[in-house]
Amino acid sequence: MKLSGVMPPIITPFQNGKLSLDKIKKNFQKWNQTGLSGYVVLGSNGEAVYLNDKEKIKVIEVSRNSIPKSKIMIVGTGMESTQETIRFTNQSAKMGADFALVVTPSYFKGSMKPQILYDHFISVAESSKIGILIYNVPQFTGINLEPEVVAKLSEHPNIIGIKDSSGNIDQLSEIIHRCQKGFAVFVGSAPVFFPALCVGAVGGILAVANAVPNECVEIQNLFNKGKMEDARAEQSRLTPLAKAVTVKYGIGGLKMAVDLTGYFGGDPRPPLKRPGKEVEEELKQLLLQLKNSNKKSGP
Amino acid sequence: MKLSGVMPPIITPFQNGKLSLDKIKKNFQKWNQTGLSGYVVLGSNGEAVYLNDKEKIKVIEVSRNSIPKSKIMIVGTGMESTQETIRFTNQSAKMGADFALVVTPSYFKGSMKPQILYDHFISVAESSKIGILIYNVPQFTGINLEPEVVAKLSEHPNIIGIKDSSGNIDQLSEIIHRCQKGFAVFVGSAPVFFPALCVGAVGGILAVANAVPNECVEIQNLFNKGKMEDARAEQSRLTPLAKAVTVKYGIGGLKMAVDLTGYFGGDPRPPLKRPGKEVEEELKQLLLQLKNSNKKSGP
Amino acid sequence: MKLSGVMPPIITPFQNGKLSLDKIKKNFQKWNQTGLSGYVVLGSNGEAVYLNDKEKIKVIEVSRNSIPKSKIMIVGTGMESTQETIRFTNQSAKMGADFALVVTPSYFKGSMKPQILYDHFISVAESSKIGILIYNVPQFTGINLEPEVVAKLSEHPNIIGIKDSSGNIDQLSEIIHRCQKGFAVFVGSAPVFFPALCVGAVGGILAVANAVPNECVEIQNLFNKGKMEDARAEQSRLTPLAKAVTVKYGIGGLKMAVDLTGYFGGDPRPPLKRPGKEVEEELKQLLLQLKNSNKKSGP
Amino acid sequence: MKLSGVMPPIITPFQNGKLSLDKIKKNFQKWNQTGLSGYVVLGSNGEAVYLNDKEKIKVIEVSRNSIPKSKIMIVGTGMESTQETIRFTNQSAKMGADFALVVTPSYFKGSMKPQILYDHFISVAESSKIGILIYNVPQFTGINLEPEVVAKLSEHPNIIGIKDSSGNIDQLSEIIHRCQKGFAVFVGSAPVFFPALCVGAVGGILAVANAVPNECVEIQNLFNKGKMEDARAEQSRLTPLAKAVTVKYGIGGLKMAVDLTGYFGGDPRPPLKRPGKEVEEELKQLLLQLKNSNKKSGP
Repeated sequence: MKLSGVMPPIITPFQNGKLSLDKIKKNFQKWNQTGLSGYVVLGSNGEAVYLNDKEKIKVIEVSRNSIPKSKIMIVGTGMESTQETIRFTNQSAKMGADFALVVTPSYFKGSMKPQILYDHFISVAESSKIGILIYNVPQFTGINLEPEVVAKLSEHPNIIGIKDSSGNIDQLSEIIHRCQKGFAVFVGSAPVFFPALCVGAVGGILAVANAVPNECVEIQNLFNKGKMEDARAEQSRLTPLAKAVTVKYGIGGLKMAVDLTGYFGGDPRPPLKRPGKEVEEELKQLLLQLKNSNKKSGP
Repeated sequence: MKLSGVMPPIITPFQNGKLSLDKIKKNFQKWNQTGLSGYVVLGSNGEAVYLNDKEKIKVIEVSRNSIPKSKIMIVGTGMESTQETIRFTNQSAKMGADFALVVTPSYFKGSMKPQILYDHFISVAESSKIGILIYNVPQFTGINLEPEVVAKLSEHPNIIGIKDSSGNIDQLSEIIHRCQKGFAVFVGSAPVFFPALCVGAVGGILAVANAVPNECVEIQNLFNKGKMEDARAEQSRLTPLAKAVTVKYGIGGLKMAVDLTGYFGGDPRPPLKRPGKEVEEELKQLLLQLKNSNKKSGP
Repeated sequence: MKLSGVMPPIITPFQNGKLSLDKIKKNFQKWNQTGLSGYVVLGSNGEAVYLNDKEKIKVIEVSRNSIPKSKIMIVGTGMESTQETIRFTNQSAKMGADFALVVTPSYFKGSMKPQILYDHFISVAESSKIGILIYNVPQFTGINLEPEVVAKLSEHPNIIGIKDSSGNIDQLSEIIHRCQKGFAVFVGSAPVFFPALCVGAVGGILAVANAVPNECVEIQNLFNKGKMEDARAEQSRLTPLAKAVTVKYGIGGLKMAVDLTGYFGGDPRPPLKRPGKEVEEELKQLLLQLKNSNKKSGP
Repeated sequence: MKLSGVMPPIITPFQNGKLSLDKIKKNFQKWNQTGLSGYVVLGSNGEAVYLNDKEKIKVIEVSRNSIPKSKIMIVGTGMESTQETIRFTNQSAKMGADFALVVTPSYFKGSMKPQILYDHFISVAESSKIGILIYNVPQFTGINLEPEVVAKLSEHPNIIGIKDSSGNIDQLSEIIHRCQKGFAVFVGSAPVFFPALCVGAVGGILAVANAVPNECVEIQNLFNKGKMEDARAEQSRLTPLAKAVTVKYGIGGLKMAVDLTGYFGGDPRPPLKRPGKEVEEELKQLLLQLKNSNKKSGP
């Protein structure tokens, strides 16, 4: 299993506020027919912060049963506490996760000095039964993991990659350039997916891939074939939708877009909300533009 | 019971990584002899983000048994999810908390628009069996609750106050000026405790009060007596220590200072660490300077 | 002449885009009848960045002729280049300025390290024929001068004070506490004028004092008499107007308010603009509220 | 003359604090033998903020005489005032500048709303006798010009391009995608030169090109030939030096690197300083690594 390609951090469907395992299964049935290389379960976009421990276990279970062996299963296992992160990572490993995505702890921002973060990841890596991917997402955590620290962490045999969602291509280049050969660098920001591939990223873990997986995969396919102009054009078509379902309308918008493309999204948990009718119209328009201009891809 | 005065957000002692209920009790025995008006249990400085559900329950239990009826007991009950916040708030109420301190949800920073935050607090207030204090702490959450929103929230009968830890006196003044009469505004940043009192705060919820409660109380006593110069001088003596145990050395530094003043602090949970010997020396010096220059207070 | 009290950084009136020396004179005639202790000429609010060298000289000339010996005349002389700052400071000295207000150079933000800024101010102080006040205004310069550096600079006999416009009362307290006895600390942010006095500021250099000088002076008078509640109440009345003519509507708003209080404001220079009719109505309301609630002051 | 390729914002040499026209000439003689497509005179790196009006005129004069007609001459003419910007732009035009680079005015950051900035650029463009390039450089100005505004400005026939130094590739992509066909988008941040070309930039205006012009040009040449891997590798070699002479050591470091590559750099004007010996050693090492790994280029 090669750690590369496009993966969505899968959304978690609720019905009447309750976890809908059935809808998760159905979403996987459709996603499995696309060019996605794998999935991130319990990521930020999976509203992991709104799930209790039991719910998390159920999501892992049903995901494990729904993901074929040919596709990668990554589970988001990062907690504020080092000890809890280790515990949940190994629980996920036991339940069949291929890799763990571990977000930087961040509540005590001022104390999260480079050495503290380094030690945290090393502790987790030492104790984890599966390979660790670092998750750097300043827009949610309020802290950034410096390329220098990532480079040192990449020397540990059980730290095998990173998802960098900073959107900073300079930083991504530096990480790729400084890290150990074979360290898997994923970009976590869809609007810079194409330039990230140009500077050497192995793939993208992209929220918008929940809704339009093949359109994301197509960018990487075009890039791999050396069709730079086409890849760039496809990126330009994807970007407006990608921004709408992240920065602009958040998870409520993402779930709405997911509903509009034949999957099940539903409502996010409060305090998040589903956006109104005008946003739905806007998303429909964005999807239409993307699909019309691109007859090549899609199931 | 008047909602005012100095309260520490109490630290949570661990021994060998495990919760030490015994040490919590002992700390309360000493704090109860000081001029503190009450306590915040499971606040940021209580490392609530590093405690699991069972541990939280135990901390509430032992605190409830240790806090006399003459002192206020506030429990930090804010979670990312509205529903979980309500659940835990009412569990705390049932266990005897006087009030709940509810932090702004913040993981999805970009989505935490004023209306979303307003609705969250209103939902919690509507369902809560005890009065709610809003907790605004941008240095940890990465978001700020605007005075305009606080003013609107203060109209709800079950939203009775705020702890504002922004350190922004302009904002604190505006909150005090715009909120309903009787709305209890606490400052959560010790270096601006005196100016906060000047602009109308009713008290302070101060990390450094874990270690030097009476020195904090003395500032408010002097202020109440109209001894402005003395209050200001006492503030200037307190500030260097207050900064050392928050911004500079974080909870590891706070727990060390607590150990140095006859309470039990111990180590924080990883990824946090206890600072080294030089920091201990620095804290000793700061405590010495504070105690020497101030013979008036202390238990 | 005691360096304290309320001073406006005076606005610079234009007519048809040209400097109006006549209107400057007329404004001074009115201001001179108020309780203002002095003036800052060619400050930020004087649109100094939009004036060429000749215009600056004229403004100094007419100001010198209009300011009585009983009031302080400070001239803003800070430039990006150390050499040019020295040249213009001494030119201003020769023309009769009592003191020079020297802003932190800031264009190359990343290079403006503490030592660079320290050396700049020392160089200027060494060569200046008049006393220097440091001007720290992060909202315009994008950099902040740390209290530690200010403390060291305060040891120089020719660096006699600071105008700190950060609005950060914690920082202001630290500056006052750490600086040499007699070092004159002015606050440059009207909404925190009262708390600044509480922590030991000697006065305020306040944009809004262009329009309502006596209302500003009244806050300090009440404070000096120990009437804390009245001072705080006056501050709360002033704040909305103060914010409107700085943060909210900028210099265009300030000049409009100046026009509404019987002085001459006129239009700012482009790219700045005079706000529209609705803003004028809003400012009228704010002035009305301020004047109504306060019958004690005004020329 | 096609507006594309690599241009340095040329440094301004001083000797004993005075402008050295002779050294400017000599630098041009060498630069003219490289693959540079043109030059920016009086840019940020030219220390324009430290030059007085007469000095600026002299720099334009000697530059005009030194730049062959086959290479582009752009002059930095942006001032805080709209009127002064127009005046200096047309003076530069009269003196032979091909284009003007106009930085966003920025002193009154809070007032620099999108409409204000739009109107400023339109006013300048309307009155200018030469084509205007917008200059967006948030690290110096503290403000960012949104892609939406740039797109609208690109509709004006006399606004022909932009230098975006934000380093934000997402923003650069959006500008390129939204602006009028033929609008020349230059990146102003060397570490993202290669990804900027990938997303459609026509060239780079790069500080480090003062010292190693051909190494910069080589990246674009390789990119144009479709040799993506080689271009990326060359970028990785250039980046450490590029960061050292901008973010890390600023203009003092840049001038030092320029001295080390056979041009004349000299000292920057105070408050800027020339870095010490260790930085010189570091820069020598960085240059050695760059030259060794790359035998293909150089004058």
